[in-house]
Amino acid sequence: MSDPTIQRRLILERRPQGTVTNEDVVLHEALVDSPGDGQILIRNHFLSIDPAIRDWMSERPSYLPPIRIGDPVRSTVIGQVVESRVSRFRPGQLVVGIGGWEEYSVADAGQFSLVELKPGDEAQHYLSIYGAVGLTPYFGLLEVGKPKPGETVLVSAAAGAVGSLVGQIAKIKGCRAVGIAGSDEKCRWIVEDLGFDAAINYRTETDMVASIARACPQGVDVYFDNVGGQILDATLLNLNKDARVVFCGAISSYNSTEPVPGPYNFWQILARSATIEGYLVSDYLDQFPQGIAQMREWVGTGRLQFREQVIDGLENTLDAFNLLFEGRNEGKLMVRVAP
Amino acid sequence: MSDPTIQRRLILERRPQGTVTNEDVVLHEALVDSPGDGQILIRNHFLSIDPAIRDWMSERPSYLPPIRIGDPVRSTVIGQVVESRVSRFRPGQLVVGIGGWEEYSVADAGQFSLVELKPGDEAQHYLSIYGAVGLTPYFGLLEVGKPKPGETVLVSAAAGAVGSLVGQIAKIKGCRAVGIAGSDEKCRWIVEDLGFDAAINYRTETDMVASIARACPQGVDVYFDNVGGQILDATLLNLNKDARVVFCGAISSYNSTEPVPGPYNFWQILARSATIEGYLVSDYLDQFPQGIAQMREWVGTGRLQFREQVIDGLENTLDAFNLLFEGRNEGKLMVRVAP
Repeated sequence: MSDPTIQRRLILERRPQGTVTNEDVVLHEALVDSPGDGQILIRNHFLSIDPAIRDWMSERPSYLPPIRIGDPVRSTVIGQVVESRVSRFRPGQLVVGIGGWEEYSVADAGQFSLVELKPGDEAQHYLSIYGAVGLTPYFGLLEVGKPKPGETVLVSAAAGAVGSLVGQIAKIKGCRAVGIAGSDEKCRWIVEDLGFDAAINYRTETDMVASIARACPQGVDVYFDNVGGQILDATLLNLNKDARVVFCGAISSYNSTEPVPGPYNFWQILARSATIEGYLVSDYLDQFPQGIAQMREWVGTGRLQFREQVIDGLENTLDAFNLLFEGRNEGKLMVRVAP
Repeated sequence: MSDPTIQRRLILERRPQGTVTNEDVVLHEALVDSPGDGQILIRNHFLSIDPAIRDWMSERPSYLPPIRIGDPVRSTVIGQVVESRVSRFRPGQLVVGIGGWEEYSVADAGQFSLVELKPGDEAQHYLSIYGAVGLTPYFGLLEVGKPKPGETVLVSAAAGAVGSLVGQIAKIKGCRAVGIAGSDEKCRWIVEDLGFDAAINYRTETDMVASIARACPQGVDVYFDNVGGQILDATLLNLNKDARVVFCGAISSYNSTEPVPGPYNFWQILARSATIEGYLVSDYLDQFPQGIAQMREWVGTGRLQFREQVIDGLENTLDAFNLLFEGRNEGKLMVRVAP
């Protein structure tokens, strides 16, 4: 940019203990950097609000390095190229990739891909149904869970952005779909509106082992796990032989300050010849176009429903983020930082 | 049998807490039963002494039902058919299958298969190298671990009957083989005699995470886990992306009286896109003949070494069993109850 521009950014000032506060992540003003060789400058339109970001704020080893203290919080963003130092991107193009909780991101071009809107698409869909949120259940359920018609698929955080799609895709594939969610309203929504076969409200059930057994009378063949913890433990006692656990997330432990033990029923993995597979949608990057095409067809024919919750204003990002951990978001959470 | 015969049996009188004592498993005399329809009567020659038996003595759900109080302890046996009520077995034939810690077993014929000795074979080999002990590493490493040449295979209980074969098969397949064992003598044996690339004495190392990192400088691609517990926890921090954990056993927890938490580093399964698969050799039953043929070839050409430890006398069975949990056995443990 020829004229230096001032932007706002949310900087990680210290590693949070438990819930993230605005002493951990602080709003600052800064000059917008210029892109170096191989980099692009992006005006961010939407920031993606995801549980995994909590993990990147900590120091424990993960699939991405920890966010450095003093850097903006890392997140997926959608935005417009303002300036490009690589040939494959031009100013004005819409791109999606790994940026930050900030108004402008300078990033390596290799971390971004071009978004080509089709009729009916909106840019924000590439952070939700045509982004990780849609593709995570798509590849996770089909490529890792490998459900067969007639099998039972159980999913936790079932009214969430990912979980609600897991159940719907399971139904499309001829499975029994059972969801675990945190309110009667959410349970009603996934059964009555989304077509799940059964739902369990984990906040009101006292014996999750028995509740899962009732909702899954033929046992669980595929468990799509977004939460870990006690629900995973209860599920392990309901697995069928040769069951597959898609280990997609463990939101129940992300805010913990002590080492969290694995499931007490870990032994059941052996007793039932089950498989637990850690799953990252980014491993399927080269199959994204095919996945997006399939999702677009299902959305277009009304077979898949999804919800987005858009919160306006960079300054509200941290509040939006904490909604996730309270289970109070309704659909894929995003922050709009520019129109 | 026309004349009633008296035999000795080791009966499970109560469920053990921790280490199994001779108040839990008691030597009794009893009349030998006659086989019913579809059953055979076997004179047991060798009893197999395996860690999994400890699990069957408890009440927790497993891949076989708990042994009933008042029944003989269940175990794999090799013996000679004395009386048969099915057409496919005849008196005098050598058979292997699920019997008990007793001199004679009456069992459903479906639980037994015929042993056909080839030149150089001994009957007891069908409880060791040509039985579960040899076939567990064979199918577990090759079908579940799926090691590729140049990868690093780590195995716990590496001087044990199963573990020592895991490392040797890994070497045959062109991998780096690293073993974890409980004494310097065991470590020397697996490196100098069996050809492992490195060994770790877990009793003298204080920081297992660092020890594994040193012995596996390229990280761990396949972990063949026989023990669980802290060694599994330390290994999880050394896994490469897309690593495979063959969950074959968890001897570290079999004698525990409290619920045992899963690994504290359970999260690493996701962080490294790893897979943990519970593995039972019995799932590969229909491929046993092919596995035995391959093992026989490797043994015949000197590429595989194995050790057997035979203890004489049914009355010594419980002492033999407890050797396993003290790590004091040397090779596959068996009890000879008849010549």
